[in-house]
Amino acid sequence: MTITMRTFTILFFFATIVAVALASTSDNNVEEVISQVVEIHRLRPQTGSAGYPIPQLDCLSWRLAVETNNLRDWKLVPSVCENYVGHYMLGKQYRRDCEFVASEAIKYAKGLKLSGDGKDVWVFDIDETTLSNAPYYARSDVAFGALPYNNTKFNEWIAEGKAPAIPSILGVYKTVLSLGIKPVFITGTRENFKQIRIENLKKVGYSNWAKLILKGENDVGSAVAFKSSKRTDLVNAGYRIVGNIGDQWTDLIGENVGARTFKVPDPMYYIG
Amino acid sequence: MTITMRTFTILFFFATIVAVALASTSDNNVEEVISQVVEIHRLRPQTGSAGYPIPQLDCLSWRLAVETNNLRDWKLVPSVCENYVGHYMLGKQYRRDCEFVASEAIKYAKGLKLSGDGKDVWVFDIDETTLSNAPYYARSDVAFGALPYNNTKFNEWIAEGKAPAIPSILGVYKTVLSLGIKPVFITGTRENFKQIRIENLKKVGYSNWAKLILKGENDVGSAVAFKSSKRTDLVNAGYRIVGNIGDQWTDLIGENVGARTFKVPDPMYYIG
Repeated sequence: MTITMRTFTILFFFATIVAVALASTSDNNVEEVISQVVEIHRLRPQTGSAGYPIPQLDCLSWRLAVETNNLRDWKLVPSVCENYVGHYMLGKQYRRDCEFVASEAIKYAKGLKLSGDGKDVWVFDIDETTLSNAPYYARSDVAFGALPYNNTKFNEWIAEGKAPAIPSILGVYKTVLSLGIKPVFITGTRENFKQIRIENLKKVGYSNWAKLILKGENDVGSAVAFKSSKRTDLVNAGYRIVGNIGDQWTDLIGENVGARTFKVPDPMYYIG
Repeated sequence: MTITMRTFTILFFFATIVAVALASTSDNNVEEVISQVVEIHRLRPQTGSAGYPIPQLDCLSWRLAVETNNLRDWKLVPSVCENYVGHYMLGKQYRRDCEFVASEAIKYAKGLKLSGDGKDVWVFDIDETTLSNAPYYARSDVAFGALPYNNTKFNEWIAEGKAPAIPSILGVYKTVLSLGIKPVFITGTRENFKQIRIENLKKVGYSNWAKLILKGENDVGSAVAFKSSKRTDLVNAGYRIVGNIGDQWTDLIGENVGARTFKVPDPMYYIG
């Protein structure tokens, strides 16, 4: 009980400091003080309120390395980061991060000078970009990517066809459509799921596209090679890729990536 | 006083919940509970403990968009994020984020199969990569990039030649050297600062390099064009760029970017 009591005492002490800080400030500064208190937490995320160091991988640094493509070919979310990734995915931050990307994409799309000849396309990835598998990844036997990928289970989930839209990316899709840019979906999902994916997309609001390109039997090799080859087909057919959005860097590098790329957050898995 | 008192009450209520949660757990779970409490803060960084929404730009989402190259050609750190960026830069998180990038770069470098013919090079950017201008950016008249860039003042700071090393990137440099890979510095700093930069680099531990390439009078145009052209010169001279590290995406895209790139965090400015 000693540690528990000490923790309680120190937490209480901390709460008192916060309370005194708040009480001694004028009303106008309350928000600023709250903001500063919150900032301190943000800077020392691996340290408890009482200054307990939590000796482990810094999950914020890990996630930043994932999102910036500094970390590549990783197989699993580190087990110490399962809680962190889960909270991130189900909490406000993931939603806000998606909203920020979406708002930049919309701003960019609206600023484009379009030809109006029907050849401007925007490439959308599907999983963790237009549709979310968060309900599947939140399952205890999936653990937000901290447990090894199980192809059978994942395919069963996909076959249910009930992946929700990521609302902010649905907003990008609707803007793109309204501007006369044609959406093209390119996904690593296999051809045999085509009907299921079409129904899933339509059910959540994606109802119109120029092409829906899935992975065929002959599409072997890396994600970069597959997606590059499909984009190159588009370009060779006279399309201009004005935008390209995906959750994996392998959606956004390689050949004919498009005039501008947008990276949607995804700390749950890496596709190489 | 009403808001202050309400804040106090709600904070006290929150502290009580935490305390009860801690008191009701066994000693072994204390760290886990602390970790979860901290996680909650991390997920709701724009929300006070009592759930007060802080209605403004989400600075975490803004920074993520900067680091993932989703946000481009931005001029200033948003004024609402000045405090956030300042705390980030001077706190543990920036250091840890740099350390994580560095450890990935070192792991990668050590795993390389090198030719040993002296033609393997590693490209290093200077500002906010090998040297830090944080002491300058922390000044109240610079405000971590929330105030407009002042060329005269910045050049005066550079002329002092006292920029510290970023310790973890110095570690990458030392590893690279020890493996027989030749460091090449490519910087947007003007040629007339060459001697000052050499002295600054040497003073903080960078004492050996194959080339130090600065921006000459004839180097006009974008950062991408300048850096691409200098890297292409290296490749044409028979060098192999096995690694490339910089704080700006414009260091890491364009021609001959190298076999692998590493993005060092920098939420203070954008170079286009």
